Amino acid sequence: MTLATLDTPAALIDQARMERNIARMQQRMNELGVILRPHVKTAKCLEVARAQASAGACGITVSTLKEAEEFFRAGYTDILYAVGMAPSKLMRALALRSQGCALKLVVDNIDAARAVAQFDRAHGAGFEVLIEVDTDGHRAGIRPQQDVLLEVGHLLRDEGVKLAGVMTHAGASYDLHTAEALADMAEQERAGCVQAAQRLRAAGLPCDIVSVGSTPTAFAARKLDGVTEVRAGVYVFFDLVMHNVGVCALEDIALSVLATVIGHQQEKGWVIVDAGWMAMSRDRGTSAQQRDYGYGLPCTLDGAPLDGWIMSGANQEHGILSRTPGAAPAPAEDLRARFPIGTRLRILPNHACATGAQFPEYFAVSETGATAAWKRFYGW
Amino acid sequence: MTLATLDTPAALIDQARMERNIARMQQRMNELGVILRPHVKTAKCLEVARAQASAGACGITVSTLKEAEEFFRAGYTDILYAVGMAPSKLMRALALRSQGCALKLVVDNIDAARAVAQFDRAHGAGFEVLIEVDTDGHRAGIRPQQDVLLEVGHLLRDEGVKLAGVMTHAGASYDLHTAEALADMAEQERAGCVQAAQRLRAAGLPCDIVSVGSTPTAFAARKLDGVTEVRAGVYVFFDLVMHNVGVCALEDIALSVLATVIGHQQEKGWVIVDAGWMAMSRDRGTSAQQRDYGYGLPCTLDGAPLDGWIMSGANQEHGILSRTPGAAPAPAEDLRARFPIGTRLRILPNHACATGAQFPEYFAVSETGATAAWKRFYGW
Repeated sequence: MTLATLDTPAALIDQARMERNIARMQQRMNELGVILRPHVKTAKCLEVARAQASAGACGITVSTLKEAEEFFRAGYTDILYAVGMAPSKLMRALALRSQGCALKLVVDNIDAARAVAQFDRAHGAGFEVLIEVDTDGHRAGIRPQQDVLLEVGHLLRDEGVKLAGVMTHAGASYDLHTAEALADMAEQERAGCVQAAQRLRAAGLPCDIVSVGSTPTAFAARKLDGVTEVRAGVYVFFDLVMHNVGVCALEDIALSVLATVIGHQQEKGWVIVDAGWMAMSRDRGTSAQQRDYGYGLPCTLDGAPLDGWIMSGANQEHGILSRTPGAAPAPAEDLRARFPIGTRLRILPNHACATGAQFPEYFAVSETGATAAWKRFYGW
Repeated sequence: MTLATLDTPAALIDQARMERNIARMQQRMNELGVILRPHVKTAKCLEVARAQASAGACGITVSTLKEAEEFFRAGYTDILYAVGMAPSKLMRALALRSQGCALKLVVDNIDAARAVAQFDRAHGAGFEVLIEVDTDGHRAGIRPQQDVLLEVGHLLRDEGVKLAGVMTHAGASYDLHTAEALADMAEQERAGCVQAAQRLRAAGLPCDIVSVGSTPTAFAARKLDGVTEVRAGVYVFFDLVMHNVGVCALEDIALSVLATVIGHQQEKGWVIVDAGWMAMSRDRGTSAQQRDYGYGLPCTLDGAPLDGWIMSGANQEHGILSRTPGAAPAPAEDLRARFPIGTRLRILPNHACATGAQFPEYFAVSETGATAAWKRFYGW
């Protein structure tokens, strides 16, 4: 199958761009002297994770136990499940442990820590547990200076659980867009997580792993002293949100949605394609950024952005392409002539994690134009 | 499995509510003297479609050829594919036709009509074709008074294609919220579609089917004279957007996401659950309505809404529950005591079509609390 014959909509991976993105992040982590533990929640695809491992990544990060199970089955054993553990998920985690998976769990409160510890002891599970640290106030975690950090650490140690370290995620970096602000956030993330590790060690508790990360802070960090590993996910594809944050060029975005023109509303200047929000996702992440791409940025089939066009609207299976607000209208343009029925376009997504999730498979496109189907899984 | 033991997040269908919603719409269509052709894009689930057929629905509407293929395999033959036909999809459509599927295609322009007609003749496909009519300016279709309506009709007839009728979808009704505005939109949808049918017939062209529909206009229509069938989808589950539009009570919403409390940020008044945007979808459809529910409305396990709470934020696998903006804060409230780790909640979604799409299966919950897994498919 080629871009001319694939059924649309289809999720395309530009393999050359993906490999370049992987190499760039790996080189950066090598320079900073830390391990890269990629977050596979972005792609949920074995071929993508294998490319990351081939470039030097160690272990993986997952957002669901389903991801842990799928990747463990494929041979990955060093897996960090980076969402606060729910007691009801412990039996599934145990099944992985008992098959030899070095599954690392995360807690950020006494009650979850106690539940994990009691279960661990009752079943001899041998979980490694990390304490989640809140370094940017955007989500979960214990702030580095809070008393409860040590309380959780002592509880785990006293119950005989292996306290493996600390982890944090400065997701607030997604809201920034200047090099200085990003570097400051990276330092805040680093310093907060290292502070938490030092407090645990000063209290006589073990803390081998100091895990930080988000794609923007990974690129922006001036130094990562005291950090042992970085987790990042979306860098593998990048997207329009990351472009607005300032960590990639449009030409780096490796994921796009192949779509076909199915109609026009000539008087309104609309081109209608067969990729709506079911294909692009409902993610409107660029709406609060300095440049709003609607539901995506249309490009020609060879990947050149259509200057002045966005996907301004989306129904479930209809996308509406129109001129960017403020862009000069093209009143004399014959849309039927420029975009005939059947024309194929590639739409760059706002958010690669959300758009990828809509598809059962990706089509990896090589530099020769050949495509290969790469399965993607979903669910929990 | 019960609501206490299902893995979370999980998509739940309250079966009693769903059956009530189905009966209500069917009764309304019976009163108006039209056929109900439900849109199966909402649920993409055989068990749901069977419940609609049992109540009296005739045929189905689909938004993708994948849906057509899945439902045809399950025994459905009268299928309207309600998205403008792309020429590249004709071979898949032919495969369905040649197996006996009474597949109805839609066109809204000369070029697509010509492509369908030439293919139809070349392959003896015997497609039935409907012309899409634009009655509300929100998406695709030919306006009832445009010359091109007759041009498309003549082209199809002259090429020997079976012109089956006209169809329209007043999706702009989603933006309304008063009974009068909805009734006016329903009349605009009806009148425009009937006008198009009358113009075709006056020109000597056949037009048996006059198909209209959206959930809000189906309920709001004062009369449907001249209409033969109504298409509607989301009514089967309803959602918070439909509640804001005014066509259902909160107690009618049959789809919810089962989630587990995994943490708190006590000082911010946040409860963190294991259902983020991957479970709820990124749909923020209520953000532009009179009441914004964030990413969803949390309810107790038995379905009672938590007054003054919404899911105010979402990461991929984290949902943040907090007080509604403007609702009195609960500064003295001990969130750990009210929502202990492991607490299960049900979150009502903004948009049932988008939320359902995130899950490989639903769990249908009977009035006894028993659950049954109902498979849901996705992709194109």
